[in-house]
Amino acid sequence: MAKTRKAKPLVAILMGSTSDMDQMSRASTKLKEFGIDHEVVVTSAHRSPAQTAEYASSAKRRGIQVFIVGAGRAAHLAGAVSAHTTLPVLGVPLESGALKGMDALLATVQMPAGVPVGTLAIGGSGAENAAILAAQILALADRAIAAKLDRFKKAMAKKVPGVVEQVVAD
Amino acid sequence: MAKTRKAKPLVAILMGSTSDMDQMSRASTKLKEFGIDHEVVVTSAHRSPAQTAEYASSAKRRGIQVFIVGAGRAAHLAGAVSAHTTLPVLGVPLESGALKGMDALLATVQMPAGVPVGTLAIGGSGAENAAILAAQILALADRAIAAKLDRFKKAMAKKVPGVVEQVVAD
Amino acid sequence: MAKTRKAKPLVAILMGSTSDMDQMSRASTKLKEFGIDHEVVVTSAHRSPAQTAEYASSAKRRGIQVFIVGAGRAAHLAGAVSAHTTLPVLGVPLESGALKGMDALLATVQMPAGVPVGTLAIGGSGAENAAILAAQILALADRAIAAKLDRFKKAMAKKVPGVVEQVVAD
Amino acid sequence: MAKTRKAKPLVAILMGSTSDMDQMSRASTKLKEFGIDHEVVVTSAHRSPAQTAEYASSAKRRGIQVFIVGAGRAAHLAGAVSAHTTLPVLGVPLESGALKGMDALLATVQMPAGVPVGTLAIGGSGAENAAILAAQILALADRAIAAKLDRFKKAMAKKVPGVVEQVVAD
Amino acid sequence: MAKTRKAKPLVAILMGSTSDMDQMSRASTKLKEFGIDHEVVVTSAHRSPAQTAEYASSAKRRGIQVFIVGAGRAAHLAGAVSAHTTLPVLGVPLESGALKGMDALLATVQMPAGVPVGTLAIGGSGAENAAILAAQILALADRAIAAKLDRFKKAMAKKVPGVVEQVVAD
Amino acid sequence: MAKTRKAKPLVAILMGSTSDMDQMSRASTKLKEFGIDHEVVVTSAHRSPAQTAEYASSAKRRGIQVFIVGAGRAAHLAGAVSAHTTLPVLGVPLESGALKGMDALLATVQMPAGVPVGTLAIGGSGAENAAILAAQILALADRAIAAKLDRFKKAMAKKVPGVVEQVVAD
Amino acid sequence: MAKTRKAKPLVAILMGSTSDMDQMSRASTKLKEFGIDHEVVVTSAHRSPAQTAEYASSAKRRGIQVFIVGAGRAAHLAGAVSAHTTLPVLGVPLESGALKGMDALLATVQMPAGVPVGTLAIGGSGAENAAILAAQILALADRAIAAKLDRFKKAMAKKVPGVVEQVVAD
Amino acid sequence: MAKTRKAKPLVAILMGSTSDMDQMSRASTKLKEFGIDHEVVVTSAHRSPAQTAEYASSAKRRGIQVFIVGAGRAAHLAGAVSAHTTLPVLGVPLESGALKGMDALLATVQMPAGVPVGTLAIGGSGAENAAILAAQILALADRAIAAKLDRFKKAMAKKVPGVVEQVVAD
Repeated sequence: MAKTRKAKPLVAILMGSTSDMDQMSRASTKLKEFGIDHEVVVTSAHRSPAQTAEYASSAKRRGIQVFIVGAGRAAHLAGAVSAHTTLPVLGVPLESGALKGMDALLATVQMPAGVPVGTLAIGGSGAENAAILAAQILALADRAIAAKLDRFKKAMAKKVPGVVEQVVAD
Repeated sequence: MAKTRKAKPLVAILMGSTSDMDQMSRASTKLKEFGIDHEVVVTSAHRSPAQTAEYASSAKRRGIQVFIVGAGRAAHLAGAVSAHTTLPVLGVPLESGALKGMDALLATVQMPAGVPVGTLAIGGSGAENAAILAAQILALADRAIAAKLDRFKKAMAKKVPGVVEQVVAD
Repeated sequence: MAKTRKAKPLVAILMGSTSDMDQMSRASTKLKEFGIDHEVVVTSAHRSPAQTAEYASSAKRRGIQVFIVGAGRAAHLAGAVSAHTTLPVLGVPLESGALKGMDALLATVQMPAGVPVGTLAIGGSGAENAAILAAQILALADRAIAAKLDRFKKAMAKKVPGVVEQVVAD
Repeated sequence: MAKTRKAKPLVAILMGSTSDMDQMSRASTKLKEFGIDHEVVVTSAHRSPAQTAEYASSAKRRGIQVFIVGAGRAAHLAGAVSAHTTLPVLGVPLESGALKGMDALLATVQMPAGVPVGTLAIGGSGAENAAILAAQILALADRAIAAKLDRFKKAMAKKVPGVVEQVVAD
Repeated sequence: MAKTRKAKPLVAILMGSTSDMDQMSRASTKLKEFGIDHEVVVTSAHRSPAQTAEYASSAKRRGIQVFIVGAGRAAHLAGAVSAHTTLPVLGVPLESGALKGMDALLATVQMPAGVPVGTLAIGGSGAENAAILAAQILALADRAIAAKLDRFKKAMAKKVPGVVEQVVAD
Repeated sequence: MAKTRKAKPLVAILMGSTSDMDQMSRASTKLKEFGIDHEVVVTSAHRSPAQTAEYASSAKRRGIQVFIVGAGRAAHLAGAVSAHTTLPVLGVPLESGALKGMDALLATVQMPAGVPVGTLAIGGSGAENAAILAAQILALADRAIAAKLDRFKKAMAKKVPGVVEQVVAD
Repeated sequence: MAKTRKAKPLVAILMGSTSDMDQMSRASTKLKEFGIDHEVVVTSAHRSPAQTAEYASSAKRRGIQVFIVGAGRAAHLAGAVSAHTTLPVLGVPLESGALKGMDALLATVQMPAGVPVGTLAIGGSGAENAAILAAQILALADRAIAAKLDRFKKAMAKKVPGVVEQVVAD
Repeated sequence: MAKTRKAKPLVAILMGSTSDMDQMSRASTKLKEFGIDHEVVVTSAHRSPAQTAEYASSAKRRGIQVFIVGAGRAAHLAGAVSAHTTLPVLGVPLESGALKGMDALLATVQMPAGVPVGTLAIGGSGAENAAILAAQILALADRAIAAKLDRFKKAMAKKVPGVVEQVVAD
């Protein structure tokens, strides 16, 4: 990852704790595949609310276009970001604690009318899909990303093998 | 409710929408029974986050000692208040929407370490209990409230009738 | 709704049955508020799969930029659309049947890696939020929509009243 | 498994990913016990929808009589197959991800009227039962399979030991 | 329903109580549409276990080829039938009691290896789909039913309207 | 219900509130059918704990042999009774509040090792079954009740009609 | 376990598979502590229904007074036993498979009116409590068991230590 | 932990079993951080109810001001304590058994009107938060604790790093 130029992050990946990186790193990996500059932010809706509000409010001015936000348990971070921005916010409920992410799913997706969070699946595959959805959003105005998405989709289909075995049962 | 003197609210009852008053009014009723001045605030974690942060941050200076916070669905209001105060925050998950408050319960109670919300039962009985718990907290430094709580507890026990019928099965 | 010009739909609102209009109409209403042309499509992942595949595959060529897809129970429609497009797909789990939308929520949100659906809350408020999120996506390249979103967000905050009552408990 | 003749598959076992073979192989094992030729297909409702539609649509012409379809999480594969065929489709919700198959169960079984999926238990025992149910269906027109099912059922009953211990508690 | 000839039931529709007819009647209606003679049986796994065992054991001799079994709560009837037959058994979890059919779903679908029940959706739409699945099974050896299924599937697809409205948002 | 003799209650039916009588009255009705004297007690684990402890502790001396205990929500009454007695305690989770008895079921049945509660179904049918189970317990030492149970079981089986309709589908 | 006399089993411990012994052995251990002869039976509601019906029907004649029945997943065994007897049946939902016993709990406890199963907690502690409840039932007519239960209860209370530490926080 | 003076416990940490110390020790650790004397009590609502009632009833006289109560499964201990006191009771649902604390959560939080338990998250983070909430309650009348809470809250916010990485995606 040679930083030959300064990053111009279009996507912000937020999470409440560095321990969430296990699951959220798949979002960063996927964004890199699509050639999308981004930044990774650890901020908490509950422990550092002012930092979160400030970051969310100012991100648009700084060039951010889409938020990807992961959180576990009473997962409020995505909602807190959405409260402070009119940019699209994508939420990733993380798998942690006794309830394995069912709490995070409901706390992320059941937002009240007026303040949307587009929610993906629980855990790492949700983080990966958040990155793809972010790419799909950015692709509306960026032909290069759109072309990469088309190639990604075709390659994905080709990898599925179809009939793998015919069994004679004698 | 003759306002013969100015209120000195010790408890703040918060909710995200005036439609939550149906369930939250039981908290106000109970506080009045215990002789506790309070104020009722409609503010939203998601629609008016700055107002919520400002209210939660300044409440201690204004004399508030306990928060009672009701919210439904992805119920973030109690957590948002707790993020901005070191006062005790009591959460009431409200019954609304398709999931009938199970979402609100998990979003209220499953707070991360460092930012507690003492959560009561879903709906109106939870709101009533939040008021009683607030009274129990205030009673630690207020003998008048403590005495009222003792009377309330004894009266409650007395109302339970015990044996109500003996049935001869011939 | 005088049709003085031909619609140029940017958003497609899909649902599996005309009976879903009860909940999904809030998406259409909200898009109109934001001045976004759209079309309403009744197509089923299960009863008319070829129609669905054809619609999803060709929508991009016809100018559609975002899909809003509502479905109940084993809610596959949003996933089926996402399988056929690289456009952003927003899913709305509908409240119907014995399980009140919990089935639809899981069937919509738990998509496998590679094929995202940005999922909103169960029912009509989810439909409304899908429209707002679609507007947020389109606003990245459309200043008029962006300005409307800013006004909407500010108006929403202003409607929240704050302190509504101070109660003297004598 | 000497392939002394060409297979004439009557049953198709489908799954979305080769990693599902862990749980789905029990279906293949059981079909072999009943002497039923079958083929194993890896195809995805979401990543390779055209392949899935094509396979499901043409299977009847190729001699397939019953589908056994396993999938996890937002398990749409069985429903996608049922959408393209009038053959019986049996669904196996797979145990994977944070929700351990509860999501797959609801996404498989809660199909809308008109497009049935006969759903078995979550995981490997469901895969085994899908094979037995497929055998029961084929046995309606095949005395050899019917006879094997009768023997299987009697043998299963005989293996249950009944009283295994009498304990004197002194 | 003029009985001009004696019925030769191929399908047995079982339920534990006459009150289940509300939901189960849709199975009978659908079988009639497909021209399939059937009989309706009220028998209980728990209240009349001998009757149930006798009926399930002897049905094959009497010409029954498929069972459709509806039950609510701790829904054991489908499993009890499957325990006594090698014919295909289709289970319909009924919506009743406090848990609205979630209990019936789990009690019907989570059968142990060796004794399958092909389970449909909770409630009346599950009953309708059980009838369609029974028809799909019988159609493997009956061209008339197969032809009816093809027509049904095509008609179902045609009824889905596609684009129903284009909205100009001015 | 002519009280020609003094009741000698063998069974105590307990509930936390007179409003629970709606569901619990079915226990009393059933005990009367089996000729079993009983008494109905309203006492609360939480509001009148001393009364509950005293009643549970002294019931054996007063001739009570079985407890039937109904409670809703955080249903502790059955467990509280079991904590104070070595008599059999049967628990009935009541349907009330937002969670419809799922909370009461778990709070009643998930007792720790050492202090059992034999739990019946949620609601009125659970109350009825608690009475039957109490009769089954008492019948071990009472031939008259045993005979009534035998007649009840046979009558119940006879009421199930078996084949109710044969449908010719022309 | 010297068998110096022939066992006269008063309690039958049933389970569907020898693999259930892991969890069910705690019932046997506890019955031995209370000096209660019993027998252990492996029989299945689904794989050996005739054996189960025969055993349940004849147990009373053979001197059995209480059934303890453990089963997992779609746990029908306790209900199947209760269908064939007027003796008390105690059910133990076992922890197995993807749903960890929640399925077994609902399939055991949600029995229809007329056919009770007194259900204990999921897993081994439920098995232990079933043995204690069986002892409580038998103790109604057996002073020796009653005395052992009293001693057990007192010993259990004594083992709980009360205040274990006082912490000075300097 | 040099005991240079006698402890004057203000908080009582209760749990039903010494094995609960794993999760509950975080409450003790946190109270020590805030300089709050406390005592640790192992007592059971079910196995030692008289001890529990006696402890809860007398604690106020002994100087206790807040209860922190942890319990698993059918978690009644917090409710049992609240039944015997007018002091604030904070409940911690513990993660144990097949249901991983969901049972304990519902049994702790769904208390009836009149007898509140302020409930925290499942497991060790809930125990830690109970200690913080206890400190917040005590801080209302203790400036030293209030000052520590302020420092704790600021330190917590400072530890959250904000932007941790900017990624150039070339």
